[in-house]
Amino acid sequence: MPLPAKVQVPGGLLKIDRGFTLAFSGYHEARLDRAAQRFGAQIERETGIVFPVSVIAKDPSKATLLITTDHESKPVQELDEDESYTLDITSSGAKLRAANPLGTLRGLQTFLQLVSVTRDGFAVPAVSIQDQPRFPWRGLMIDSSRHFIPTDVIKRNIDGLEAVKMNVFHWHLSDNQGFRVESRKFPKLQENGSDGFYYTQEEIRDLIAYARDRGVRVVPEFDMPGHSTAWFVGYPELASGKGPYQMERKWGVFNPAMDPTNEKTYKFLNELIGEMAKLFPDQFFHIGGDEVNGKEWDANPNIQAFMKAHEIKNNQGLQAYFSQHVQDLVVKHGKTPVGWDEILVPGVPKTIVIQSWRGADSLAAAAKMGFRGILSNGYYIDLGWSAARHYAVDPMGGAAANLTVEEKQRILGGESTMWSEYVDAENIDSRIWPRNAAIAERFWSPQGTVDVASMYRRMEAESERLEWLGLTHRSFQPKMVQRMAGPADPSELAALRRLSEALEPVKDYTREELAATEPTSQAPLNRVVDAVQPESEPSRLFSVDVDQFVAGSCQDALKAAELRRQLTLWAGNDSRLQALAQRSYLVREASPASAALSQAAELALNALDRLTQGLPMTEDLKKQQTEALNALELQAHKSQLTLPARAAFQKLIEAATSGSACASSR
Amino acid sequence: MPLPAKVQVPGGLLKIDRGFTLAFSGYHEARLDRAAQRFGAQIERETGIVFPVSVIAKDPSKATLLITTDHESKPVQELDEDESYTLDITSSGAKLRAANPLGTLRGLQTFLQLVSVTRDGFAVPAVSIQDQPRFPWRGLMIDSSRHFIPTDVIKRNIDGLEAVKMNVFHWHLSDNQGFRVESRKFPKLQENGSDGFYYTQEEIRDLIAYARDRGVRVVPEFDMPGHSTAWFVGYPELASGKGPYQMERKWGVFNPAMDPTNEKTYKFLNELIGEMAKLFPDQFFHIGGDEVNGKEWDANPNIQAFMKAHEIKNNQGLQAYFSQHVQDLVVKHGKTPVGWDEILVPGVPKTIVIQSWRGADSLAAAAKMGFRGILSNGYYIDLGWSAARHYAVDPMGGAAANLTVEEKQRILGGESTMWSEYVDAENIDSRIWPRNAAIAERFWSPQGTVDVASMYRRMEAESERLEWLGLTHRSFQPKMVQRMAGPADPSELAALRRLSEALEPVKDYTREELAATEPTSQAPLNRVVDAVQPESEPSRLFSVDVDQFVAGSCQDALKAAELRRQLTLWAGNDSRLQALAQRSYLVREASPASAALSQAAELALNALDRLTQGLPMTEDLKKQQTEALNALELQAHKSQLTLPARAAFQKLIEAATSGSACASSR
Repeated sequence: MPLPAKVQVPGGLLKIDRGFTLAFSGYHEARLDRAAQRFGAQIERETGIVFPVSVIAKDPSKATLLITTDHESKPVQELDEDESYTLDITSSGAKLRAANPLGTLRGLQTFLQLVSVTRDGFAVPAVSIQDQPRFPWRGLMIDSSRHFIPTDVIKRNIDGLEAVKMNVFHWHLSDNQGFRVESRKFPKLQENGSDGFYYTQEEIRDLIAYARDRGVRVVPEFDMPGHSTAWFVGYPELASGKGPYQMERKWGVFNPAMDPTNEKTYKFLNELIGEMAKLFPDQFFHIGGDEVNGKEWDANPNIQAFMKAHEIKNNQGLQAYFSQHVQDLVVKHGKTPVGWDEILVPGVPKTIVIQSWRGADSLAAAAKMGFRGILSNGYYIDLGWSAARHYAVDPMGGAAANLTVEEKQRILGGESTMWSEYVDAENIDSRIWPRNAAIAERFWSPQGTVDVASMYRRMEAESERLEWLGLTHRSFQPKMVQRMAGPADPSELAALRRLSEALEPVKDYTREELAATEPTSQAPLNRVVDAVQPESEPSRLFSVDVDQFVAGSCQDALKAAELRRQLTLWAGNDSRLQALAQRSYLVREASPASAALSQAAELALNALDRLTQGLPMTEDLKKQQTEALNALELQAHKSQLTLPARAAFQKLIEAATSGSACASSR
Repeated sequence: MPLPAKVQVPGGLLKIDRGFTLAFSGYHEARLDRAAQRFGAQIERETGIVFPVSVIAKDPSKATLLITTDHESKPVQELDEDESYTLDITSSGAKLRAANPLGTLRGLQTFLQLVSVTRDGFAVPAVSIQDQPRFPWRGLMIDSSRHFIPTDVIKRNIDGLEAVKMNVFHWHLSDNQGFRVESRKFPKLQENGSDGFYYTQEEIRDLIAYARDRGVRVVPEFDMPGHSTAWFVGYPELASGKGPYQMERKWGVFNPAMDPTNEKTYKFLNELIGEMAKLFPDQFFHIGGDEVNGKEWDANPNIQAFMKAHEIKNNQGLQAYFSQHVQDLVVKHGKTPVGWDEILVPGVPKTIVIQSWRGADSLAAAAKMGFRGILSNGYYIDLGWSAARHYAVDPMGGAAANLTVEEKQRILGGESTMWSEYVDAENIDSRIWPRNAAIAERFWSPQGTVDVASMYRRMEAESERLEWLGLTHRSFQPKMVQRMAGPADPSELAALRRLSEALEPVKDYTREELAATEPTSQAPLNRVVDAVQPESEPSRLFSVDVDQFVAGSCQDALKAAELRRQLTLWAGNDSRLQALAQRSYLVREASPASAALSQAAELALNALDRLTQGLPMTEDLKKQQTEALNALELQAHKSQLTLPARAAFQKLIEAATSGSACASSR
């Protein structure tokens, strides 16, 4: 995963044992040696075999894997570089060939994904692969402002990007809740605007080198003129309001915005952008530009006077004025501006890149106008959607499907966005992975790669590999569960684990709405809602089983037994948690959801009983049970949790109702 | 854990929230600030609360925890330093007081162990603790020779030592299978004797500083004159045989030994010991001295002639001659020699320290003769014993109990020993933890601390804390299981997990005996036997339940149901693994043990049925079932695994036999 463009599987295996070696030919650079070392370390983790200190063959002619790289890649990784490779594996050896080191990196990841246990040891299957990406811009954005994300966490996520062949790390570095970069020209930015949680320039340089090693570009974002309260704590003179300002502790859209009418603002930005343009070597420089509510502008008489004087009709016009100035500064410092939808206003030069949070249609419209763009709408992984739902979104979907070939080329790809209201170092991996792998496949693999069952199968396998790389999207949960439980007996712990595995956080932006007290950046993320996965695997599997059961007219007795087993576990789970909920405030908070899960499972069990006993429900009873189920979902919301198997429970109720295909076939 | 010497619990709680701070008073040094930072990081992990960048209070008078350290400790940590502390916690604040930073470090760990979730948030209970160690030498030995253990793994284990208040890391750095230290004077030691897996001097210095920060001494061991084949690969002239030599790849006692009759040997050792004595600042220097079989000496006519000329009667005498010379060199370089039992021969100066692998009686005998000693017999954690069994061993046990007060003072403490035939970076933590915490308690807590049930309860809680510190003794297992399974459905994976959790590796030195092919240092440790815990928690809990059930004359219906639930899971487990065993050679290898577990559980289930149905077995049937059970244990050995619940199964069979208290009470 992502699925290669072309794969042939002639049959046969290449064994992987302690004698495995690789050799390079053609163009060579130190980055390739480091890649080989990582490759060796990852094969060790995948197989449990400890290789010699270097996996590089002393005698290249005897290497198991021969890697040929034709020429170098660009000194700073560019948008349109060739990432293609071919990989040919037979039972006697493997050959990887690529135009430049980027393709080599991609091919090595494919090889690693092929390693598996077999009847006779570890091996890779014989294959012939020709592969290249569908889109040149395949990114993940991480918001380091709302919650600070330490560099080691960023690094392991960049390892993840390499593993799934993404090539852009978009770093959202400033927002209302924090300015996270050391500026030497304007040190009050980080000193007053970060609570001490910021990246030093040395850390950033180190991280950029780390990303380059993995074929990943680092695109910085400094969000302006809104989303910038944290700047104003140290430099209130940049703002349109009076100040003083504090770092925002809550979520949402806030009033503070830069003063677009003050020449000092541009002087400041000129210097800061100059400093940051040097720090971040990538060609692209993201200036944000989203969600300005204009209230500070409306309230400032100087700004109103300026608008009148310059015949700027409204705040949109004022933002365009600002945006134009900032883009000019970015260009002046040798970079190409990127911004959210809002920066696309009449008169903007065609070189800018639009990142669309509004949607594929907006992106298509931009492409028609001649702008390049990347899609993020549909890839907001902070919203808790299923992998399948993200997977169904295509940058070439919607209006983009009707673009001309030339216009289509302006759609560069897409980015998943990890906004960090509800993530910190502990649980962020689980909000990114493994779902981001499905999105990575959307950006890399041919457009026709749409089989959801296949995607889930491969995503599960990839998920395990990602844990080997050091990501903690699976292993964080048992630790959080243990912490919430405190000293508990094994059956209590098992019950809390089962609960945590069965539920999901509420979706979209409902967590704010459901919170008893308004959430802040200082509230610990140590609750059940923080520990559950965005997509519950047991619930998903249960739902698949229900679909198959119902599709087979509910005749499959084995399936029925399996459904009953799962439902019985869920139904009995809440009673095992009662005592623990008395002792732990974190467990108690999830009690409404726990009771809801058990009662909902009881309803489904009852439906299953009626099905297997041939005692269908009346329509009235169905309605009553459906209402009960809906009420239980609302009850789970009290814990900011949702019952992901609810639709499956509902299907069982419907199947057990007189007149359904299932009920009729009994 | 370890249990403090004196604890009073008046009742009440001190809340731990985001406002928690600490302050230092009295003596201060940078090590204390680093300790505070680690302390803050660990509280974050224990609570999920993210603290401000520094947990140190800006206004000391408002600190939650006030730490007073009276004076500095020694520049190089010494054996007899004061490690005592007092900790007083009330609902309004906490005070920690210690004579020097070592006591402060110990007290901070106690505080961390008190943090727990409560009804109303995280908190520590109000307590008043006066604490000091029972023994001054409380160590863990890790063998880095038989398998190389990377520095990051060593470091996280030193974190573990700090957590359980151990104060010595004994580093077994050379043996037949590898010389693991960079020598600048004799670089062929590591170049030819380590396969490239060795520690640079810089890494060692860094690790020693890391250990000092945690109040842990680092005692190096260079095992001589046997256990030294790896030295001879680069320097065959040191050996008594002809060579050439290769690093040993197998386990056991080998023939190669240094030539004690060659002055060049001592010249070499003088320089090497001089170099290493500078590198390792600790006062103690371990010279090994164990298990010389003398075969190379017997076969070398020059050595035989030398013995005759010097009236050395036998090989023991020759080793004493060698040992005396090496001890003189160690003393010359300012260090105190430590060695295994064998170095204790007539005439040896009383300053040396004896590490006893032979036992408490041997140690007591040495103490009577005036030698200081540390006990390791009974703490060989590589043998796979239960925590309870190690816990029952006391350095003051056996003949030591009858020593005079003065003689007793010569017993400095003990060391657990992690010999590394069957551990590597991946599973070593699980062979050390959590059992090493029980041993740490034996060395720290008052002699009367012997309640096994209490020990297990506290060890479980401590085990979780150790995972927070970065140890992987729990989290490694799901990853190894997943790797062995490869792509598998959830029910197969659950079955393999259940199997791995239910079994234990065979104990003591039987793994070599049972191996189909002789094991080597190059064989991957990726098998079920490498993934199972030395002490199966589900099996232990089951056994405790059986004991309680039988003690209650088998009347407890709830307990019976619980036993039946566990037995049913085990009994049905093997059939779920069949298909997977066809696909994975690693699972297939465990098939005999898997079948044995399921069949043994069937036997126990049958006994339970007879008990609850009032149908006791005849003596003949009991005998037959017992034999069947024994045969199943032998069958499990084919996979180098053992059935830890076998004794409990047997108890159920006996309870179900006519004439037993259980059968009679029905």
